[in-house]
Amino acid sequence: MTTKFVYDFTEGDRGMLDLLGGKGANLSEMTRLGLPVPPGFTITTEACLEFLRTGSEPATLYSQVWTNLAAVEGRSRRYFGDAADPLLVSVRSGARFSMPGMMDTVLNIGLNDETLVGLARVTSNERFAWDSYRRLIQMFGKTVLDIEGHLFEEILDEVKAAKGAESDVDLKVADLKELVAKFKELVKKETGDEFPQDVRQQLTLAVRAVFRSWNTERAQLYRRQERIADDLGTAVNVCTMVFGNRGDTSGTGVAFTRDPATGAAGEYGDWLPNAQGEDVVAGIRNTLKLADMRDTMPEIHSQLISIMNLLEGHYRDLCDIEFTVEEGKLWMLQTRVGKRTPAAAFRIAAEFVTEGKISLDEALQRVSGKQLINLMFPRFVGSHASDLIAVGISAAPGAAVGKVALTSAKAVEFAEQGENVILVRRETNPDDLAGMVASVGILTSRGGKTSHAAVVARGMGKTAVCGADTITVESDRFTTASGFTVREGDVIAIDGTSGEVFIGDVPVTESNVTRYFAGSLSDAEHAADPLVSAVDLLVSHADLKRRLGVRANADTAQDAALARKMGAAGIGLARTEHMFLGDRRSLVEALVLAENDEAKDAALAALLPLQVEDFVGIIRAMDGLPVVIRLIDPPLHEFLPNKEELAIKVAVARATGQKVLESDEKLLTALERMHEANPMLGLRGVRLGIMFQGLFEMQIKAIVEASAILKKQGLNPHAEIMVPLVASVKEFEPIKRVGKQIIADANQRHGVDLDIPIGTMIELPRAAVTADRIGREAEFFSFGTNDLTQTTWGFSRDDVEASFVGEYLERGILGTSPFETIDAIGVGELMKIAIEKGRSVNPGLTLGACGEHGGDPVSIDFFDAVGLDYVSCSPFRVPVARLEAGRAALIGAAVSDSR
Amino acid sequence: MTTKFVYDFTEGDRGMLDLLGGKGANLSEMTRLGLPVPPGFTITTEACLEFLRTGSEPATLYSQVWTNLAAVEGRSRRYFGDAADPLLVSVRSGARFSMPGMMDTVLNIGLNDETLVGLARVTSNERFAWDSYRRLIQMFGKTVLDIEGHLFEEILDEVKAAKGAESDVDLKVADLKELVAKFKELVKKETGDEFPQDVRQQLTLAVRAVFRSWNTERAQLYRRQERIADDLGTAVNVCTMVFGNRGDTSGTGVAFTRDPATGAAGEYGDWLPNAQGEDVVAGIRNTLKLADMRDTMPEIHSQLISIMNLLEGHYRDLCDIEFTVEEGKLWMLQTRVGKRTPAAAFRIAAEFVTEGKISLDEALQRVSGKQLINLMFPRFVGSHASDLIAVGISAAPGAAVGKVALTSAKAVEFAEQGENVILVRRETNPDDLAGMVASVGILTSRGGKTSHAAVVARGMGKTAVCGADTITVESDRFTTASGFTVREGDVIAIDGTSGEVFIGDVPVTESNVTRYFAGSLSDAEHAADPLVSAVDLLVSHADLKRRLGVRANADTAQDAALARKMGAAGIGLARTEHMFLGDRRSLVEALVLAENDEAKDAALAALLPLQVEDFVGIIRAMDGLPVVIRLIDPPLHEFLPNKEELAIKVAVARATGQKVLESDEKLLTALERMHEANPMLGLRGVRLGIMFQGLFEMQIKAIVEASAILKKQGLNPHAEIMVPLVASVKEFEPIKRVGKQIIADANQRHGVDLDIPIGTMIELPRAAVTADRIGREAEFFSFGTNDLTQTTWGFSRDDVEASFVGEYLERGILGTSPFETIDAIGVGELMKIAIEKGRSVNPGLTLGACGEHGGDPVSIDFFDAVGLDYVSCSPFRVPVARLEAGRAALIGAAVSDSR
Repeated sequence: MTTKFVYDFTEGDRGMLDLLGGKGANLSEMTRLGLPVPPGFTITTEACLEFLRTGSEPATLYSQVWTNLAAVEGRSRRYFGDAADPLLVSVRSGARFSMPGMMDTVLNIGLNDETLVGLARVTSNERFAWDSYRRLIQMFGKTVLDIEGHLFEEILDEVKAAKGAESDVDLKVADLKELVAKFKELVKKETGDEFPQDVRQQLTLAVRAVFRSWNTERAQLYRRQERIADDLGTAVNVCTMVFGNRGDTSGTGVAFTRDPATGAAGEYGDWLPNAQGEDVVAGIRNTLKLADMRDTMPEIHSQLISIMNLLEGHYRDLCDIEFTVEEGKLWMLQTRVGKRTPAAAFRIAAEFVTEGKISLDEALQRVSGKQLINLMFPRFVGSHASDLIAVGISAAPGAAVGKVALTSAKAVEFAEQGENVILVRRETNPDDLAGMVASVGILTSRGGKTSHAAVVARGMGKTAVCGADTITVESDRFTTASGFTVREGDVIAIDGTSGEVFIGDVPVTESNVTRYFAGSLSDAEHAADPLVSAVDLLVSHADLKRRLGVRANADTAQDAALARKMGAAGIGLARTEHMFLGDRRSLVEALVLAENDEAKDAALAALLPLQVEDFVGIIRAMDGLPVVIRLIDPPLHEFLPNKEELAIKVAVARATGQKVLESDEKLLTALERMHEANPMLGLRGVRLGIMFQGLFEMQIKAIVEASAILKKQGLNPHAEIMVPLVASVKEFEPIKRVGKQIIADANQRHGVDLDIPIGTMIELPRAAVTADRIGREAEFFSFGTNDLTQTTWGFSRDDVEASFVGEYLERGILGTSPFETIDAIGVGELMKIAIEKGRSVNPGLTLGACGEHGGDPVSIDFFDAVGLDYVSCSPFRVPVARLEAGRAALIGAAVSDSR
Repeated sequence: MTTKFVYDFTEGDRGMLDLLGGKGANLSEMTRLGLPVPPGFTITTEACLEFLRTGSEPATLYSQVWTNLAAVEGRSRRYFGDAADPLLVSVRSGARFSMPGMMDTVLNIGLNDETLVGLARVTSNERFAWDSYRRLIQMFGKTVLDIEGHLFEEILDEVKAAKGAESDVDLKVADLKELVAKFKELVKKETGDEFPQDVRQQLTLAVRAVFRSWNTERAQLYRRQERIADDLGTAVNVCTMVFGNRGDTSGTGVAFTRDPATGAAGEYGDWLPNAQGEDVVAGIRNTLKLADMRDTMPEIHSQLISIMNLLEGHYRDLCDIEFTVEEGKLWMLQTRVGKRTPAAAFRIAAEFVTEGKISLDEALQRVSGKQLINLMFPRFVGSHASDLIAVGISAAPGAAVGKVALTSAKAVEFAEQGENVILVRRETNPDDLAGMVASVGILTSRGGKTSHAAVVARGMGKTAVCGADTITVESDRFTTASGFTVREGDVIAIDGTSGEVFIGDVPVTESNVTRYFAGSLSDAEHAADPLVSAVDLLVSHADLKRRLGVRANADTAQDAALARKMGAAGIGLARTEHMFLGDRRSLVEALVLAENDEAKDAALAALLPLQVEDFVGIIRAMDGLPVVIRLIDPPLHEFLPNKEELAIKVAVARATGQKVLESDEKLLTALERMHEANPMLGLRGVRLGIMFQGLFEMQIKAIVEASAILKKQGLNPHAEIMVPLVASVKEFEPIKRVGKQIIADANQRHGVDLDIPIGTMIELPRAAVTADRIGREAEFFSFGTNDLTQTTWGFSRDDVEASFVGEYLERGILGTSPFETIDAIGVGELMKIAIEKGRSVNPGLTLGACGEHGGDPVSIDFFDAVGLDYVSCSPFRVPVARLEAGRAALIGAAVSDSR
């Protein structure tokens, strides 16, 4: 049997996307629905693939094309190549997935020196005919004959200049004739052949050009960026030409069934009377609103509204359409499910539910966590291009405006004066934490999306632009590439979504959605913003559907309270290292530099009541819910001064004959002793706990005391103790043993019955592959996906983004940064091994994830699929995680292999 | 049925080790062979375990003991507690594995105030009887009654002082009587009870004390160190006492069937006439050689020689024995397979083969790679305790003597003057490489077994003592803890096996075994050293048996040639980074700091011919055998100056008003730009190759050109190209593509047909878990177990040894450093995953290992078990790997879980 390579629009339907492409399937669908679609047919993707594979069209392709063309001729009662009243056709690509502008289109196929005359006559419009002809030669020449486009443009500009024409429409028939002649000369010169007068040859060459356009470089690049497979091929749609530029009873336009920007119901579209599609796109004339058509073409308008209602009902979704009116007759040229903004996505999904068009489950599947993230950031209002002073990497989205502070201390000072602050640093480190807390946004000249600044900012839900490498940060100012100087105290604005940096006070609006979740939106504001209701509806539904619990990462009582408002069912990660900064720094220095046990014990004893206070605050804020507290993780020397700076200070003092402080010398010696070439792989986490006898014990005591205090106040504390960086169960055992003893002692002393589980992070490959040993001892696992990613890939989060991850992404070696979205096949494989081994020895083991990935929608899908019990993320990501977890439960995770 | 808890010596045999312990099983075996063993019986380990579990002896134990005791009484015709002629017994522990001195022994059980009289009478030796009694009370008091030993010693000293006695033997009967009285008083005072006069009570209490001694702290510690399980328990041997101190026809001694130090055949032992066993041990009198007995007790001597021959033949191994002669009658008190030095192990195994006693396969299983390592190092001759100035960590075994050089340059200078050099540094880094090459030994004051100095030294087969933290290294000297100063040029000696550092020229002897393998031992020397023949015999046999190939890690033509002599079947790892040092440093600096492509290309072009030369040398030296060349791996900034030092230099220059060199400023800026917080996880390996376009290409071109040159010379080059630090197949693909193109181009240009496989290191956890993807592209895998250990554990090799691995080992968290012996359950698990996944897509994939572990015997066993094709190790470890691979093939790897 001969393969069917050509489908008349009457033969296909919207289910045939793979074979007919999106455009073809929808043209068929509209035809099937009885809508006015110009007659035509679709050449299948299979024909394209065979051409691409073999270099020539399937043997039977053109006999099928001519048969179908004859049918079209029959229906339109015009004939292809007929000198009296020619049928003209468009040849358009149409792949499975929309690739706008990536592939080729040729209009007006069927015009030649002879049919031109007929077209002029039947349309009574010679200028239209000649203009159509020159457009064909230009488009055909560029697209089919591979002549560089600018050569046509240059001729067009010459002729316009010679004739004093301002624009194309000023060209007269004679000018257009001259233009056609010159275009033909160009074709002859560039290809050695005349412009083809054989209309069938025009058609076959155009089809072949569309086939070939699947593999142009820009199409391949686009597919790689959009993750569209390379082996799909494109269909080719051959469609009767209709013209919207045949007088006042003609016109053309595009419309959406709802506002794709806001999601509001009501007619939404633009059109132009007496115009062709490309005029609407080109913006030569100002388009009219669709509603204006009601006055000038009431019947067409009413027909269009009916069709749009029908399409929205049929597709059960927002549709966008293209239409042309030719001498009082409406033609539908395209429809598809319309793109929309995140806000529109939520509102349309929710309102379709209200309107009874779709179920809540369906609605939930039409929105995404990624969209919700977008809705939760503040935004700049209006355009401020003239104030742009630099562009960096969009490190943490949002919009922030404030006074420039160049040090952490200055940021705190400004904040205390009630100012909004943007902290501007070359790069940040843990010392800058207070300043980051005090700021609304962070701008750095170094580092990328996974730099300290970016990671901490995202964790705090603050805006950040990083790696703006055209600015130079000095001690009292920063300068831009153009030499513009910004001083401390000047106001700048940063857009964390675009990476743009503006000078001056750009107006910002906060997100109602965020305010709603944070509990600061008034009822009136809520009522006035249908988006908030839509988000609420869908997030609430997600809560009903999801299997995955959502906890928050929070280190303070305030963050814990916020997380609770955001809907967190507990804290999945309370980091304790931030509690060792600020005022307590001197105690930590005393601890680290202690020369004997007495000094060490004294420092620990001084820290204990402070830690008790920390934990009382956090656990109280999460009363009744679990609070997983991680024992101190990073290398202690992170809390000490910078070695190189101190070494320089001491060396300079010596060289200039100044007295070197004994304390400085002592400190420098200690820093040198403790220096590590790769601190990320050094003395941290449980290793610190084992080496620094008393440190973990102090923290465990503080957690247990805090719990006992709250218990005795009649509250319901649920602390859990988490041991970081465990590689071997033998590291975990002694900590657990001591911890359980401390809990038992406290229970006896306070007369309470605290049950505080002691579990471990799984954040090293060895922990993952030996999870069947660790799982026998640990009472829960929490995947520290940041560190697990570092060690699995051998990437240092502090280093690689700046140095090579960008390049890797660009070359497609990485699909996304593994620090943003979990690397399912590498890191994820180790997680699967750990889960299987852990549950094999401890079926009731609670499993969570508390890395940055806990708030990343794609990662959440993966975590749901592999069977984690909960994810933990920053408070601002909690609603996102709730929504995405609900979606994941419905859709089932289909995490594609992106590498 | 009642469990049998007691076995007469006539009932057991040497197969019953688990039940009777080593001593008991062998006493039974000797009894079974008809040798003169004093009558006795063994209480089983089961009885001990039940006692330890329940706190009391099995119900039927003592009825079985008394029955067996009666049998012994019948055979010896003396009776336990008989006042006229008492039977005395010893009660000795005897576990499954020898734990010398760890558990308890009580002699002379059966003596009391009454039997003492009978003993004195039948032995006609009152002094002997009283001395035996006071020994019983002392030993029983300490061991059974838990009275502190020094209390007895103090009384003994008092009495001796009062009597003017120089030693115990000077004490008269009256003195001994006084001593017994005082000892009894002490017992009464300390325990509240009299010394037990009931001989059966003496026996039961002694047995119980032996049971309990299984769980003393020192016994537990010993078992942990020796990896002996805690749940074995000890047997208890009750044996008729015989006395070697009953005059000139009595005596006692120990003997080996061959010399346990050298393995030489011939009688070997010490004895003392008229003495007890403890006198031989205590060294009160000088012992006589066994041969001396020939004159004084010819019949006994001849009987003993016959028995030793019989035992050696029966056990088919070296035996050691304890014997006592009592009034002209020989008694065998113990035998076991004797401990021996590594040299003796090889010689005995080989000579047993020659003598037809065992097969070559058996001989091979009686020696080990660990022993061979020991035999290959030079040694100090004699003792030099008085010259000891410091002790560090034994980082690389061996003995080295030379002039102290405090810088790499000085080391080179001394070496060029023909001096042996010991390079002394605080710690070493790649800059010190030339100095390390020029030195015979390395001493550092910082760092441990896995510090740079240690690793490189082991790789080079040089002696190293690291982390000698009592020495302070200054620019022109180092000082010891005692203030002793050693200046550059002074001669010191370091013992890499003990960690000792001596001042002065301690005589050293090179290992004949090493010289034999390196081809520098003369035939005469070979003939004169039976050890060399023994090693040769067994290594050659291992070559016949082994499945695992052995290649060497070698970076130079000299090393390659040496490796070949050592028996390497190729090079498994030729590192190229060392080729970027020395004279070429300026080129590397130019490359790294290149500000444009021209500058970079120029630097690469200059490096190309030098690299070609490097590779021609190595590949030629290994003609006909595979040479795996690893493309450059470490971060490029390792080849640049130290950032902190330069920053200090610039800051000091500024502060003192000196001119700062522009080149220094430029370099500092570049260093700051390239600085990484964790270079081990940063821009290195394949990442460097991808980011630094042209670098890998240059190296690949050099490898291919070198191969082509050799091919055209009629040689048979077999280069293989290895890409380091691959985490994703997408990193490997572009390198392979370019590489294959370069090979194809060269084949065409040179008219040759080089087939150069391109493979990858598996040294990141992600590479292991995605080996099914990488294996489709890579033509071989080589496990980089050093890096894989670093990332699997999250340990930085540069940092952890110094900071906490020591503590981990001490606390039993680690069994051995995972950088010394492969971590079978963690890193090894990832290797198994990689092997399975890799072979699943590419069954013919060649698999090797080229980390430090390639030369570690235990790791080699593991590599054999998991199915690797070859290991690669330093040239000096090649014979070790050959031997161990042969053993592994015979024994089958039984890698115990050590964590």
